[in-house]
Amino acid sequence: MSIETVVAPLAGRQARPEGTIVRVGGVEIGGPAVVVFAGPCAVEDQAQILSAARAVKAAGARVLRGGAYKPRTSPYTFPGLKADGLRLLALAREDTGLPVVTEVMDARHLEQVMASADILQVGSRNMQNFTLLDEVGTCRMPVLLKRGMSATLEEFLLAAEHVMKGGNRQVILCERGIRTFEPSTRNTLDLNAVPMLKRHTHLPVIVDPSHGTGLAWMVPAMALAAVAAGADGLLIEVHGHPSRALSDGSQALTFEAFGSTMAAISAVAAAIGRSIA
Amino acid sequence: MSIETVVAPLAGRQARPEGTIVRVGGVEIGGPAVVVFAGPCAVEDQAQILSAARAVKAAGARVLRGGAYKPRTSPYTFPGLKADGLRLLALAREDTGLPVVTEVMDARHLEQVMASADILQVGSRNMQNFTLLDEVGTCRMPVLLKRGMSATLEEFLLAAEHVMKGGNRQVILCERGIRTFEPSTRNTLDLNAVPMLKRHTHLPVIVDPSHGTGLAWMVPAMALAAVAAGADGLLIEVHGHPSRALSDGSQALTFEAFGSTMAAISAVAAAIGRSIA
Amino acid sequence: MSIETVVAPLAGRQARPEGTIVRVGGVEIGGPAVVVFAGPCAVEDQAQILSAARAVKAAGARVLRGGAYKPRTSPYTFPGLKADGLRLLALAREDTGLPVVTEVMDARHLEQVMASADILQVGSRNMQNFTLLDEVGTCRMPVLLKRGMSATLEEFLLAAEHVMKGGNRQVILCERGIRTFEPSTRNTLDLNAVPMLKRHTHLPVIVDPSHGTGLAWMVPAMALAAVAAGADGLLIEVHGHPSRALSDGSQALTFEAFGSTMAAISAVAAAIGRSIA
Amino acid sequence: MSIETVVAPLAGRQARPEGTIVRVGGVEIGGPAVVVFAGPCAVEDQAQILSAARAVKAAGARVLRGGAYKPRTSPYTFPGLKADGLRLLALAREDTGLPVVTEVMDARHLEQVMASADILQVGSRNMQNFTLLDEVGTCRMPVLLKRGMSATLEEFLLAAEHVMKGGNRQVILCERGIRTFEPSTRNTLDLNAVPMLKRHTHLPVIVDPSHGTGLAWMVPAMALAAVAAGADGLLIEVHGHPSRALSDGSQALTFEAFGSTMAAISAVAAAIGRSIA
Repeated sequence: MSIETVVAPLAGRQARPEGTIVRVGGVEIGGPAVVVFAGPCAVEDQAQILSAARAVKAAGARVLRGGAYKPRTSPYTFPGLKADGLRLLALAREDTGLPVVTEVMDARHLEQVMASADILQVGSRNMQNFTLLDEVGTCRMPVLLKRGMSATLEEFLLAAEHVMKGGNRQVILCERGIRTFEPSTRNTLDLNAVPMLKRHTHLPVIVDPSHGTGLAWMVPAMALAAVAAGADGLLIEVHGHPSRALSDGSQALTFEAFGSTMAAISAVAAAIGRSIA
Repeated sequence: MSIETVVAPLAGRQARPEGTIVRVGGVEIGGPAVVVFAGPCAVEDQAQILSAARAVKAAGARVLRGGAYKPRTSPYTFPGLKADGLRLLALAREDTGLPVVTEVMDARHLEQVMASADILQVGSRNMQNFTLLDEVGTCRMPVLLKRGMSATLEEFLLAAEHVMKGGNRQVILCERGIRTFEPSTRNTLDLNAVPMLKRHTHLPVIVDPSHGTGLAWMVPAMALAAVAAGADGLLIEVHGHPSRALSDGSQALTFEAFGSTMAAISAVAAAIGRSIA
Repeated sequence: MSIETVVAPLAGRQARPEGTIVRVGGVEIGGPAVVVFAGPCAVEDQAQILSAARAVKAAGARVLRGGAYKPRTSPYTFPGLKADGLRLLALAREDTGLPVVTEVMDARHLEQVMASADILQVGSRNMQNFTLLDEVGTCRMPVLLKRGMSATLEEFLLAAEHVMKGGNRQVILCERGIRTFEPSTRNTLDLNAVPMLKRHTHLPVIVDPSHGTGLAWMVPAMALAAVAAGADGLLIEVHGHPSRALSDGSQALTFEAFGSTMAAISAVAAAIGRSIA
Repeated sequence: MSIETVVAPLAGRQARPEGTIVRVGGVEIGGPAVVVFAGPCAVEDQAQILSAARAVKAAGARVLRGGAYKPRTSPYTFPGLKADGLRLLALAREDTGLPVVTEVMDARHLEQVMASADILQVGSRNMQNFTLLDEVGTCRMPVLLKRGMSATLEEFLLAAEHVMKGGNRQVILCERGIRTFEPSTRNTLDLNAVPMLKRHTHLPVIVDPSHGTGLAWMVPAMALAAVAAGADGLLIEVHGHPSRALSDGSQALTFEAFGSTMAAISAVAAAIGRSIA
């Protein structure tokens, strides 16, 4: 079995050959323009999230990302600010007007998360948490579904099918790196996934070069590569002071680096006949 | 980072150098004897689960396995009998006296599942579903935690740490095959994991050769190998009529094959100074 | 160990911080311009190689690729035309003026291959054939070294170090896809390798999207992505009639598709401040 | 494609349903008894190889292993004693009567190696060095072919087919660990390979738990597991003073540990109806 033969009547390309556009707060994801989602890995405090939200907006990002509930491999690392983090995200949204994407880890948090979010993120570790997929499938809010770290593309598409079968057709797929034998990067960003997914599904496909490399200095090159490969958007971690970040600081861009990356993204998008949203 | 340096004060070997024994219905898992868990992939109907329970008990299994809630890659395949399946498992337990292990996929099902189960299974796809781990961590029932299909051993141990941090110290680890490039088997059974885990944690370690190969004819050889590698138990799929099974029939042993496999397991256990529980 | 700590005094970036430029027949590989190597997987006959050589030259390729000695997984598939293939490559070189890259599999063929080639290719399967590396290390001809299909970047760099230790400093590295669990493509093109290698070595780095995907329709997107990631060149398979190709036809571009791909490559190169050589 | 459908008229099981027995110096490999090959990773000096040869013989090994030509990832590590190492292996053979297996890396060394060896080893890195496979295919000496570190079982069988097509039918296959994402061991020993290969080829299949783990303390457990899985033999690294070994000391057993491992192997072999040769 492979994505070539997958049975996905809702997510499969044939269901909507013209492609799905997900609309959030005036932004169109899956349309001709490339959409940049940016912000810190985790919400840490009010000053941090507000400054980051303003900086990424000024540089051209159209969606603010930020984690309030954080899945953590070890129970002894920072788990996110939870409800307080959600409150700060809502504040940053109000301040900047940027729609917010944030992760939901538990169906019981859905109401709370939806009050602060405009897009619900289902993380890599939950790509096959089928009860969570079913729950977000009943929501009327777009879902950003991240690929599991060793999920095949067929499994990824079928995870989207789970969400859509519940009635929610607003799904955005996100490639974020897979697990291989290479130790020098956190993950191996799989850009083959972009054209392959675009061929087999009508859903928008975005790329997260921050998790896909784990190294801030590699993010700009891989962001450009993702756009050139045909990605409909990018998810980029940005932090005012990466070295002081409570999680994943090594992969966060500074405001300055994010600004210059946006300019480069814009040039590559133009080269392939697209623009930045 | 690797399992050599993991910070796991509860799950790490040093916390309990003598090893943890999990006791369920008169069976000791993690003691000198090798414990065999067996039964069908999914509960299908009363006749199927009762006949399987009786057959595996007669052949020497000490725990009955059977799925009522089934995580399924595609939303269009058999999802299990759910509450009805749990009821049938309870019936089979009453009939045979065998304790039952079955999967819980959703914290909201816990009460229901615990009424029919003696061991709560957390499946591979949920190994890093941290809200589920937290929930089973608050239960007073042993947990069988299956390794994620591309989880490192460090991540596996930290998933156990999540459960234990909630207060539940009765965790059994289960190696069930990892994802590699090899297409001829469903997964690649990683028996290196057995001695490595035994060195770094005091928790019992069992092996699932059914998922680890996906092929019934390979299960006996790999079951023996797992015992020789030091596994504390085995999780084996058995079905009265594998070709008619509603899920995973290709990896299920017939009653007859299971019987002869038990005899072989017993001989290998004896060769390394252990017995079958 | 990883590429971050590798001991490679000859291949390591510090040995030549300004970067190495490999010069072949008037082309500079590793300089500001992106160089395209193109041609058929295997030389099949005079008409085929001549037409392909003329077509790729007309479209802007600067180096002709073509296999005369073909490593084949099965001994029952087409092994290449061998000496006859080399003769035809020399003919195509004379006809078009394009320098030729072709694979050498055996040190005993070196003299013969060098008479028809301008760049010696060491294939993926021979990346750690150390006797072959030593031999090409004594030659005065550039070497195109392809990454092994599961080689770490550290091992890849050390393979280059083997060649350079013999005295040959003209090494070009080629990423061509790694082996993962994904079945829908032949390999997973690892573009993370491009910035990572460029940081740790001064050698030129090129990318082969044909082997990296195995699917002609994916080659254009991944060629653009490779350029955007910073590749110094591309190695692209082109065939006059892909469906009739004796090897790897499914990944070969037609002349027409190659032409339009070249135009797109040129635009992306310009967007990042480079050009096509 | 997979091993299920491979076209291998010489190596495939159907060519010799009763199985091939390779005979070397009175030892039968592939027969009812399990054969242990043991010795140091590399020949270092006369005292080292002689003492190791005597120790492994005394403990029950029937073939002496030792490297004279060593493939080394870095050109700056010990490359083996080469011709001197071969001379010392011949001496150890004369002293103990044990047949010798040693690696050949270059067709031009064949005559020299064959003078000291009874079995020619083709290493993992050369599993698809087709010119070397062709050369050893023309020799009248058994070949021990090690699986490439990311070779599929189909490719492994086809590599054997390459050797056999040259006329040499005395091929022994050796599983030695594959490359996965797990960092705590050098490789992941793939014991699924044992029953799968035994089903699809008539050639003897042995296992190298030393490379398959990289850790001496894990070797005994995995050696037992390999025998239980059905391996026809084991290849085990043994060194008089592992901490002083010039290569791979971390995976070498001491003489004492090897002795106790042999006793355990014997017990497990008996449990499955085999013995130690």
